[in-house]
Amino acid sequence: MKIRIIGSGLIGTSIGLKARLNGFSIEMVDVDERNARLAQDLMGSPGSEAPSIVIFSLPTSQLSLVINREFALYPNSIFMDVGSVKTKSQLTIDAIPSLAPQFCGSHPMAGRESGGPEAARGDLFEGRPWILCPSDETAEETYRGIRDFVLGLGADPIRMSAHDHDRTVASISHLPQLVSSLLARQLQRMSPERLALAGQGLRDTTRIAHSDPHLWREIISMNREEILPLLHLVQADLAELIGKFDDPSKIEDFIRSGNDGASLIPGKHGGRSRDYSYLPIVIEDKPGQLAALFDECAKVEVNVEDLTIEHSPGQFTGLISLALSAEDGEKLSRHLSAIGWKVHSLR
Amino acid sequence: MKIRIIGSGLIGTSIGLKARLNGFSIEMVDVDERNARLAQDLMGSPGSEAPSIVIFSLPTSQLSLVINREFALYPNSIFMDVGSVKTKSQLTIDAIPSLAPQFCGSHPMAGRESGGPEAARGDLFEGRPWILCPSDETAEETYRGIRDFVLGLGADPIRMSAHDHDRTVASISHLPQLVSSLLARQLQRMSPERLALAGQGLRDTTRIAHSDPHLWREIISMNREEILPLLHLVQADLAELIGKFDDPSKIEDFIRSGNDGASLIPGKHGGRSRDYSYLPIVIEDKPGQLAALFDECAKVEVNVEDLTIEHSPGQFTGLISLALSAEDGEKLSRHLSAIGWKVHSLR
Repeated sequence: MKIRIIGSGLIGTSIGLKARLNGFSIEMVDVDERNARLAQDLMGSPGSEAPSIVIFSLPTSQLSLVINREFALYPNSIFMDVGSVKTKSQLTIDAIPSLAPQFCGSHPMAGRESGGPEAARGDLFEGRPWILCPSDETAEETYRGIRDFVLGLGADPIRMSAHDHDRTVASISHLPQLVSSLLARQLQRMSPERLALAGQGLRDTTRIAHSDPHLWREIISMNREEILPLLHLVQADLAELIGKFDDPSKIEDFIRSGNDGASLIPGKHGGRSRDYSYLPIVIEDKPGQLAALFDECAKVEVNVEDLTIEHSPGQFTGLISLALSAEDGEKLSRHLSAIGWKVHSLR
Repeated sequence: MKIRIIGSGLIGTSIGLKARLNGFSIEMVDVDERNARLAQDLMGSPGSEAPSIVIFSLPTSQLSLVINREFALYPNSIFMDVGSVKTKSQLTIDAIPSLAPQFCGSHPMAGRESGGPEAARGDLFEGRPWILCPSDETAEETYRGIRDFVLGLGADPIRMSAHDHDRTVASISHLPQLVSSLLARQLQRMSPERLALAGQGLRDTTRIAHSDPHLWREIISMNREEILPLLHLVQADLAELIGKFDDPSKIEDFIRSGNDGASLIPGKHGGRSRDYSYLPIVIEDKPGQLAALFDECAKVEVNVEDLTIEHSPGQFTGLISLALSAEDGEKLSRHLSAIGWKVHSLR
């Protein structure tokens, strides 16, 4: 069985890597010949049969340039795309009625800050949601084929309409991008020496402001009907804040409403609904300390779910926080304390 | 030598912990008796002599309630506060002309999301900027005493005027707080099942929206003269974005201006100006793997500056990225590849 992937960037190549492990033969295509060659090298030689699935992993604006060719070449395959805005790619498909039953739009909720085939990882989709947007014309057989393929990539397929998808990503992805950029651009007015005083809060809030302007130009533009009403709501909230800025109780209400919104996000950075314990440990700033620490974790068989290292500019200060289950946290805390590690209270 | 600390929260207790290590005797005071007792227990018994320094580590609105008492008790001590808005605490001091030469306002640029004496850490200020705002009345001897004390806490003292301080923190701290809260409150309109699709971008952008509303009510209100003009600039930029939202090239310009601003922030999360290399390594999801990895790092004597673990909800997928100097990155990459680790390309 063969998969043909049009577009050898981060997403296309990551799909290929995992599908290859699942036993598919993979054919990588790209207008950028270097990328196509590199991606194909990672996959080995493809078989000569017609592909069972053709995947479009390219900017949605490019879809119309290749879809007719692919459908003409492989009239018995099934087709999917992975673009960020689903109503727009569906418009391209709807213009080719004979293709529509064999096509299912999709969007994997996974990515990295870096792009290109070099950044690809076979585990990119592991445990991540992968939204499937079959149209009314999509054949049930097509949908099931795509869904099973996505399951094989380790992703969690979630079915919704293209419209519902676009509305959702406007809120959870496109609006945060614009707000982060809006904040970050204010920093251009500051002197670098003053910005050197910035802490983690500013860094976190502006991290996604580093995103690729060309890529986001297309995403935002294609979904502007869904994003614009959200911007108007932000604008109204901002005007209200400014209008009542001399009333401390209104400022408190405003911050509290932010608490309420942020706590709705599931997961460790949201409401801590995964209920990890955090164990802070001070270690010395020298090679071998982390190794020794993880040796101890292994000895008592605790599973480290996540960790952070707090460090000052230019140096590694040696405060490490391990995220563990409550039970593992207690176990590790007792063990490390007993053998003389600088363990702080479990949070 | 004794230090008397009025306020046994995160900052006051952290100051005490480090000063204790430096050989000072520490007296902890708080209107909350439980906090005062806990903090004092951490410090051991204070000496009976008059304090050389009295530190006010309490909300600035409380400063006027205790400053006269403290000055009357210890007329030969020097005094500092650690509040977030410096022009306001200075107003309180200016009202007591005889005190002014013995007082120096300050603000440590350090903190944690959790508060209270339990969250205190002696290393909280290690390598962090600590802004000192002596007034025109502050005696040189007072300033030097405070500066040397702050150096002893491991912090990096930076002298600026109270006005300059307040303008700076409005940009790097108070505005990001309001923008993050502004974004987070929009999430209240979403269904929890849709929010479950959120990725790291939304989580990072809204992390500080979890901050304490009562604490921030005071900070924002006290500095509103500096913050309000910034909110107006954000408002104008947002109106301009909305006004040109049907022009893709303007959207690209907007995202790019965010790139430009974000890249001015020094450090790894800013413009990567510290120039780390990032080495991605796939490890198996079982105890002992991290230990084995760090054993190898120790063997070839490379220094891990930071690391991230990518993991899917509910499990640890085993992709770890180590931040290293370019030289150490090359060295470790060669070493691990040679002995069979799944090392990806250095970025």
